[in-house]
Amino acid sequence: MLRLFIEAGKLKRLPRMGWLLRGVPNPESVADHSFRVAFITLFLSEELRNRGIDVNVEKALKIALLHDLGESKITDLPLDAQRYVDKRKAEKKAVMELLLEIESKSLEYFKLFEEYEEESSLEGRLVKFADKLEMVLQAYEYEKAGFSNLEEFWSALEYLKKSEFHKYFQELIDEVEKLRKN
Amino acid sequence: MLRLFIEAGKLKRLPRMGWLLRGVPNPESVADHSFRVAFITLFLSEELRNRGIDVNVEKALKIALLHDLGESKITDLPLDAQRYVDKRKAEKKAVMELLLEIESKSLEYFKLFEEYEEESSLEGRLVKFADKLEMVLQAYEYEKAGFSNLEEFWSALEYLKKSEFHKYFQELIDEVEKLRKN
Amino acid sequence: MLRLFIEAGKLKRLPRMGWLLRGVPNPESVADHSFRVAFITLFLSEELRNRGIDVNVEKALKIALLHDLGESKITDLPLDAQRYVDKRKAEKKAVMELLLEIESKSLEYFKLFEEYEEESSLEGRLVKFADKLEMVLQAYEYEKAGFSNLEEFWSALEYLKKSEFHKYFQELIDEVEKLRKN
Amino acid sequence: MLRLFIEAGKLKRLPRMGWLLRGVPNPESVADHSFRVAFITLFLSEELRNRGIDVNVEKALKIALLHDLGESKITDLPLDAQRYVDKRKAEKKAVMELLLEIESKSLEYFKLFEEYEEESSLEGRLVKFADKLEMVLQAYEYEKAGFSNLEEFWSALEYLKKSEFHKYFQELIDEVEKLRKN
Amino acid sequence: MLRLFIEAGKLKRLPRMGWLLRGVPNPESVADHSFRVAFITLFLSEELRNRGIDVNVEKALKIALLHDLGESKITDLPLDAQRYVDKRKAEKKAVMELLLEIESKSLEYFKLFEEYEEESSLEGRLVKFADKLEMVLQAYEYEKAGFSNLEEFWSALEYLKKSEFHKYFQELIDEVEKLRKN
Amino acid sequence: MLRLFIEAGKLKRLPRMGWLLRGVPNPESVADHSFRVAFITLFLSEELRNRGIDVNVEKALKIALLHDLGESKITDLPLDAQRYVDKRKAEKKAVMELLLEIESKSLEYFKLFEEYEEESSLEGRLVKFADKLEMVLQAYEYEKAGFSNLEEFWSALEYLKKSEFHKYFQELIDEVEKLRKN
Repeated sequence: MLRLFIEAGKLKRLPRMGWLLRGVPNPESVADHSFRVAFITLFLSEELRNRGIDVNVEKALKIALLHDLGESKITDLPLDAQRYVDKRKAEKKAVMELLLEIESKSLEYFKLFEEYEEESSLEGRLVKFADKLEMVLQAYEYEKAGFSNLEEFWSALEYLKKSEFHKYFQELIDEVEKLRKN
Repeated sequence: MLRLFIEAGKLKRLPRMGWLLRGVPNPESVADHSFRVAFITLFLSEELRNRGIDVNVEKALKIALLHDLGESKITDLPLDAQRYVDKRKAEKKAVMELLLEIESKSLEYFKLFEEYEEESSLEGRLVKFADKLEMVLQAYEYEKAGFSNLEEFWSALEYLKKSEFHKYFQELIDEVEKLRKN
Repeated sequence: MLRLFIEAGKLKRLPRMGWLLRGVPNPESVADHSFRVAFITLFLSEELRNRGIDVNVEKALKIALLHDLGESKITDLPLDAQRYVDKRKAEKKAVMELLLEIESKSLEYFKLFEEYEEESSLEGRLVKFADKLEMVLQAYEYEKAGFSNLEEFWSALEYLKKSEFHKYFQELIDEVEKLRKN
Repeated sequence: MLRLFIEAGKLKRLPRMGWLLRGVPNPESVADHSFRVAFITLFLSEELRNRGIDVNVEKALKIALLHDLGESKITDLPLDAQRYVDKRKAEKKAVMELLLEIESKSLEYFKLFEEYEEESSLEGRLVKFADKLEMVLQAYEYEKAGFSNLEEFWSALEYLKKSEFHKYFQELIDEVEKLRKN
Repeated sequence: MLRLFIEAGKLKRLPRMGWLLRGVPNPESVADHSFRVAFITLFLSEELRNRGIDVNVEKALKIALLHDLGESKITDLPLDAQRYVDKRKAEKKAVMELLLEIESKSLEYFKLFEEYEEESSLEGRLVKFADKLEMVLQAYEYEKAGFSNLEEFWSALEYLKKSEFHKYFQELIDEVEKLRKN
Repeated sequence: MLRLFIEAGKLKRLPRMGWLLRGVPNPESVADHSFRVAFITLFLSEELRNRGIDVNVEKALKIALLHDLGESKITDLPLDAQRYVDKRKAEKKAVMELLLEIESKSLEYFKLFEEYEEESSLEGRLVKFADKLEMVLQAYEYEKAGFSNLEEFWSALEYLKKSEFHKYFQELIDEVEKLRKN
């Protein structure tokens, strides 16, 4: 288990490459991002449950905490890189290997990771939704601080609008969109 | 809810003051730390459950994600500062106010925060255990990288050894202690 | 005395939190700020003396060098934090304790600090004026470099305009205001 | 051509991941490294020429300047990552695509890159030698500054000692080795 | 030779002062800049050769790699500083001394450096052209990222337009100019 | 006066080059250093006065605040650079020009600066003493944090021991020396 905790610690040192390449000095780390994805997932999943959707909050949180774990091995490959590298395959392999650390549970956890990657369960899709929302908020925050050249990241807003979850969080997404316009 | 997500985003920009004051340049953020606390909490609580302890994993994860939220308002006050400021009281007040954002659920969440602060539930105490373990690991990682003057942080090892959870994680704690000796 | 010098050294490592929270990476330190407050105090107090005002330059400089010393203990609490923490009380207590280091002189120095906090002497008020002016200049400099979201800091301009010293430094304050408009 | 220059500019913003993951804050960029590789290549190739070896200095310098260009697309993947990603293949593809920018010359340059990757020409091997030497020097410099946990990088010394160029630069390599011992 | 490589390594740690003084946090290093100057020089000199100009590519690359070497001793003095310091003289002296390291070749290299400083050879002037172009591109990249107050650096565009090389690279320079307008 | 305050603001952005070149990332600024020099000067000069020495505290503080002002123009030239550049002459010229801003007082202030440079008054020598002491303390603090290769800076201890002020501050200097040994 200890080795897994030490691997997770690498996510603190890994910069999110998209911001770095666009000129944000000392941008957030992968762990910074993962923290807020999990935080957002918590409140979104609770809200869904309140509205009568049968969402497994515990499962959603597990997925959120694991969703970028593979980056401790393969780093945060920017979008551009993914034209040359099969990131999905690499990440899957890395996560699988990392989870071997915890023996009895490794398969169960790996399935959770796949649900995120494949968007094959409600909770997997919800974390993907939270992941995009988190990125849009960070883009907003960097723009507010004065950084520019971040339009590309706002395209995730389209993802959010087309999502099955949009109808539950329309007000929230509208607010985010308005933030930018100001 | 959006305002709460934006508050949580501040934790990415707040350095952990203990490291900074001891001369680590650009140390981890509060969000970096919170991420690994939640990550550790996940694996520890699952392990406890495996061993037949009745631990609520969902609840433990919620506490972990919330446990430093108040620092978005009061920042990461170093130990020294706490001789001049009633950090606990300030943090409680800040967390309460922040949680008002989510209306219906605010009281429930606030109780979770209190369980951490007061160590009044199994899950609250488990997150405190994870919080100390995370800090010790970070101290180890900084020392490994060449930083020194971090002895103070290792005292948390004593807390871990005296904890009710020590008997379940003795091997893990022993490994951590050995890391340092090498 | 040595311990006091080492405490003052911490101010070099403490970031000014207001800028950090608004997204300025690696912002100025508390010592950076204190340096220019003292520098400004020097020239303002000399100018006042030239104009026949009976200002004690030595005293003003002492106050300027001491005015943020307490932050070596309590850090630079952002405005927001002050709704949860009694910063003034904490800072007073910290400064008092720090000054005990220098024995015979500690009370005298503590009185100087109080004159700043309470704005109870001409020199104390002058350092407050220099402190606000320094902050406005830094806001201008960050905005000039491309950072935004710093409007809040410009409100200090109102303080400067209402100050008893405005009549002596009207031209200077006008120039500062014009800087921004450009 | 402009797009190629802009791509090369990204190398300034990309940290060398090996140092970062071992805890060096704000480590050198890929461009920093590439600069010294080219610099070293210049002096080594001149020295070889002096000793009667038929080395093409111009060609060696071209290879040195190009050898990490592909990282503008795929970033500096750490050694660990290369177990999950076929870095060589990805880099080749990225370099090929980048060089298409310069049309008529793209094939010629691509061949130079391959000579480095495959170590299939004297100049290609010389740049590889310079690349390893540069890394060892950087490890030495970080260790001298106080960073530790960099043993892994010193293994490149073995590569240097086994190289065909060792006999020409034995004195130099001996000096490097002695640096460490001190 | 080793000492020369270690001197060149200092260029990685030296920030380019012009950006720093205008408020860019953690700006490029002198080595970052030198890398792209050499990179640009490579492609420009090849292009000239293609067009039938008799340019010595090897010589041009040597000059590019050496052109800022003296800054390992005198640092990157900003333009302002040059009113108080005879930078040219200081740099010449520093370069001369540094090159003494390589004995037999030191005079030959020093002459190359002088050709750059005095713009007394085609290759020397070409590196000067590449040096200005690199700076303009960096100004563009910082502005694109959100930094401002960099107008001064764009004045180098005038240098580029008046250069003897303009007729060969008019399209390129036009593109650069258009970048800014967007 | 405003322009002078803006010049002083540059000292916040200028790193102290000695640390940077020895591999300390994001080292203290010139303003950070100047702040503590002034702070130390305050307590040393008061102590001297207590002991019956006729020292002008106001004058000493003025000198401390001004002593590095010229670096806003010429930057913090490292010791090495001073073999190629006449730093003293350059700094004098820069300070003179900067002080012209304040008209009536410029000559008076320039004389203060010269007293520091030439060590021609008690107060000038005291600030030099404080300047060296500040540097030694910073070296100690960086070493304590884990940085090494800073022996050179400790040589200032010899200066302190030979100083006319040593007899008054022997205990303090002894304490500093003991710090290192631990």
